Amino acid sequence: MTTVSQDEVARAGGETAGEATPQPVDVAAPVRDVARRAKVASRTLATANRMTKDAALGAIADALVTAADRIVAANAEDLERGRANGMSAGLLDRLALTPERIAQIADALRDVSGLPDPVGEVVRGQTLPNGLRLRQIRVPMGVVGMIYEARPNVTVDAAGLALKSGNAVILRGGSAAAASNAVIVAVMQDALAARGLPADLVQSIDGYGREGGVALMRARGLVDVLIPRGGADLIQTVVRESLVPVIETGVGNVHVYVDATADVAMAVAIVMNAKTQRVGVCNAAETLLVHEAAATSFLPAALAALSDAGVVLHGDAAAMSFAPGGADMVPATDEDWATEYLALELGVRVVPSLDAAIEHIRTWSSGHTEAIVTRDIAAADRFVAEVDSAAVMVNASTRFTDGGELGLGAEIGISTQKLHARGPMGLTELTTTKWVVTGDGHVKP
Amino acid sequence: MTTVSQDEVARAGGETAGEATPQPVDVAAPVRDVARRAKVASRTLATANRMTKDAALGAIADALVTAADRIVAANAEDLERGRANGMSAGLLDRLALTPERIAQIADALRDVSGLPDPVGEVVRGQTLPNGLRLRQIRVPMGVVGMIYEARPNVTVDAAGLALKSGNAVILRGGSAAAASNAVIVAVMQDALAARGLPADLVQSIDGYGREGGVALMRARGLVDVLIPRGGADLIQTVVRESLVPVIETGVGNVHVYVDATADVAMAVAIVMNAKTQRVGVCNAAETLLVHEAAATSFLPAALAALSDAGVVLHGDAAAMSFAPGGADMVPATDEDWATEYLALELGVRVVPSLDAAIEHIRTWSSGHTEAIVTRDIAAADRFVAEVDSAAVMVNASTRFTDGGELGLGAEIGISTQKLHARGPMGLTELTTTKWVVTGDGHVKP
Repeated sequence: MTTVSQDEVARAGGETAGEATPQPVDVAAPVRDVARRAKVASRTLATANRMTKDAALGAIADALVTAADRIVAANAEDLERGRANGMSAGLLDRLALTPERIAQIADALRDVSGLPDPVGEVVRGQTLPNGLRLRQIRVPMGVVGMIYEARPNVTVDAAGLALKSGNAVILRGGSAAAASNAVIVAVMQDALAARGLPADLVQSIDGYGREGGVALMRARGLVDVLIPRGGADLIQTVVRESLVPVIETGVGNVHVYVDATADVAMAVAIVMNAKTQRVGVCNAAETLLVHEAAATSFLPAALAALSDAGVVLHGDAAAMSFAPGGADMVPATDEDWATEYLALELGVRVVPSLDAAIEHIRTWSSGHTEAIVTRDIAAADRFVAEVDSAAVMVNASTRFTDGGELGLGAEIGISTQKLHARGPMGLTELTTTKWVVTGDGHVKP
Repeated sequence: MTTVSQDEVARAGGETAGEATPQPVDVAAPVRDVARRAKVASRTLATANRMTKDAALGAIADALVTAADRIVAANAEDLERGRANGMSAGLLDRLALTPERIAQIADALRDVSGLPDPVGEVVRGQTLPNGLRLRQIRVPMGVVGMIYEARPNVTVDAAGLALKSGNAVILRGGSAAAASNAVIVAVMQDALAARGLPADLVQSIDGYGREGGVALMRARGLVDVLIPRGGADLIQTVVRESLVPVIETGVGNVHVYVDATADVAMAVAIVMNAKTQRVGVCNAAETLLVHEAAATSFLPAALAALSDAGVVLHGDAAAMSFAPGGADMVPATDEDWATEYLALELGVRVVPSLDAAIEHIRTWSSGHTEAIVTRDIAAADRFVAEVDSAAVMVNASTRFTDGGELGLGAEIGISTQKLHARGPMGLTELTTTKWVVTGDGHVKP
C-alpha cells in the first residue's frame, strides 16, 4: 500500500482536486451539510465494538465483489474519458479496475478487518495520591477527510481504515475517477445500511467539484483531520488553504548516503533497490551521496549498474569523473538536488565527509526517508541522531518506509510532518485520545 | 500551571500579539532569520543528553534569581505603562514580578529539570521476520513557537519545557510585558552561553511587533509547531493565519452535568469547586446541566450555595423556578450557553434526560472538559463514551484538567484539538518520533 506521489497527475490536467479557484456556485453549504451528517454518523461508530466494525468491513468487501460488473462498467466510462483527455498510460493503469483488482481491493479490506482495533487502548493510566483514577484512552478522531488522486482503490482503502478506526470519512477523489468512485461509494453505503449502520459514514463530495474540496478544507469543527494524498502540488494547496488540521503526506526527496567504510556490494545492492525496485513511489531514492573515500571503489560499479538499469544519472563534477564508459551522465544542478524525480533518474554527489552528507540532506530533503550504508558504528549513530527525517535506515533500502513493511498492517499515507503522526500512518494514527478521570466526589483543594 | 484564558487581555488593548494587520515595515526577513538560527541551535540540543539539559535549566534558574533586581526594574516599566494605559487590576497582577515570584518561577524550572526526559524513549520496537530491526524513537520537534499574553512567567515556563524536551523556542509575548521579557530572555541566553550552549535556543521576537507574530506563523519549514496561549481571539487568529502547524489551546466552555441519581451533597461540592475555586481559568465550569429528576433535591441547595458565593446565575425557565429566595437569577439565552464567562457567572439548565445533556454539550462545548455526577454506572459509561472532549470527569471537579494535577509534572497549555495532543500538554507533547530501521544489507524483494 505504498503511496504513489503523482505530480504527473496534476500535469495531466484531469486532477486539481485541491485548487482554490473561486467559482460562482456556492457549494460550501451542501459540503458543510455532508460534514454535519458525517459527524452525526461518526457517533454511532465511535461507540461500536470491534465485531460490529469488522463485520461491516466484511460486508463491504463482499458487496464490492458482487458489484464488480457495475464498478467495471463505470470505470470503463472513466477510462474512456481519460483516453480522450490524453491521460498517460501510467495514470490510466492506476485508474483501471478489473474484477481481479476489485477482488484484491476486497481482500485488502478483509486484511484490515483482521488488524487489532486501536480504539479503547489505554495509553496511560494511574491512580493519583488523592485517589483519582486516570485513564488516557484511545478514541476515534470523528470525521476524516481524504483528498486524493484518480485511484479508485484509495476510495476503498481510505474508507476501510477510517471505519475500522471508528471514524466517518468524506472522500474527494480525482475527478478522472468520478464514475468509478460514485458506484464504489454507493456500494459501500448500501452495505453499511444493510448492516444497520449509517450510510453517511462514507460520503463522497466528488459531485461538488474543486470548490467542494475547498469547502471541505474550511469545515473546521466538523471535519477533524484532512489527509491529502497525491502529488506535491495537491498537498501544498491543502496545507495552504485548509483551516481543518492537515497531515502532510508523501513527498519524498529521499537520499542514500554511502559512507567511507561501506561494504561496496551491499551499497550497490541498496542503491539499486532504492532507485529501481519501483519508481514513482515516495520512498524511492532520488539522490545518492558518496563519501569521497568510497568513491573509487563504489562509484564505477554503482554507476554502471544504475546506467544498465536505464537510470539517467545527474552528477556533480567529482561523480562524473567516475562514470564508466557507456554510462550516460549529465551535470547536476541545484534543481536536481531539489527534485523528486519519481522516475529512472538519480542525482549523484561526492561529499568530503559525513558532515557534508548530513548538511546536504538538511538542505534538500523533504524529511521522508534517508539511508546510510556504513560499517562504522559512530557514523551510523551520528546519521541516525542528526538526520531529521521520518525514517532513517542503516544498511537497508529506503523502500522499507511503508506501513505494510514496518508492521502497521496497512497505511493511509506517509506523514512527512512532525505533528501527530510521522512516517507511515496506520489505524492508530487515525485516532486521538481522551482523558477519563474518575473520583468519588473529588474537588480541588 | 493552569492556563489562564484571557479574552480580557485583548479587550484591554495592550494585547494583539497575533493579529494580522498589514504594516509597511518588512519584518518577515528578520523573523525568518531568527527562526533559521533557532533551527541551527536546535540541532545542538537535539543530541544533548539529559544531564546537559538539566544543568542548563538549573543555570537559568540561578541566573534569574541573581538578576531579580534587574528583572523587577524592567517589570516596573511595564507596570507603569500598563497603569497609564488603564490595564485592569487582574492583568496588572498577572504582569507583576517580585523577587518572591521570580524565586517561584526559578523553582518551577528546577522542578522541570527533575522530570524524566521524553527524548530517546523507544515508543515501539520489534524485529521483523526478515530480520530488520525497528525502533520508533521519541525525538524533539526542533523549533517551538509560542505566542502568548503579557505574563512574564510564561516566558520562563515555555522556555524551560521547550529546552528540557530538546527544542529551541521562539517567544512572542504580549507587548505589555516587553521590557520584562527582554531582560528575562537576555538572562536566559547568557546562562545558556555560559554553559556552552547556543544562546539562539531561546529567542524573542517581541521587538518585531504584531507583524513579527504573523511572520512567525508563516515560517513553515523553519518552525515545527506553534502554540498560541491566551484568549479565544488570539487563538482563533493564529489558527486562521498560521501555515505552521498549530496546537489550539485553552478555551474551555466547561459543563457539569448532575444526573438523576447524583449524590446531592457530592454534586453541590463538585459544582461549587468547579465554578468558584478559581475563576478565570479554562477548566472552571461555565454551565450546569441538571437532570429534571434531580432538580428538586439538588437545585435549591446548589443555587443558594452558588449565589452565596457571589455567582451570577443565568437559568432557563425550569432552573429559575428552583431559585431560592434571595438567589439572584436572570434568564439564560443561547449566548449564555456559548459563553466562557471566566468570571463568577454560570448558566444553569434543567434537561429531561442524559441524552439531552449530551446533546447540549455537543452543541455548545469547546471540547475541553465536562463532568458528570452520578451513581449510575450505565449513565457514567455513556457520558464517558459519548462526550467528545479532551477530558471527561466522573464524580470529580473539572478543575483537575491540568498537567500538574494529572501527573504530567508541568504543562505548556491544554490542547482542545484532536491532532497530536489532547488535553494538558507536558514534555512528551513537545516531541515527535522517528523510525530507525537497521538491517545488514536488506533490500525489498
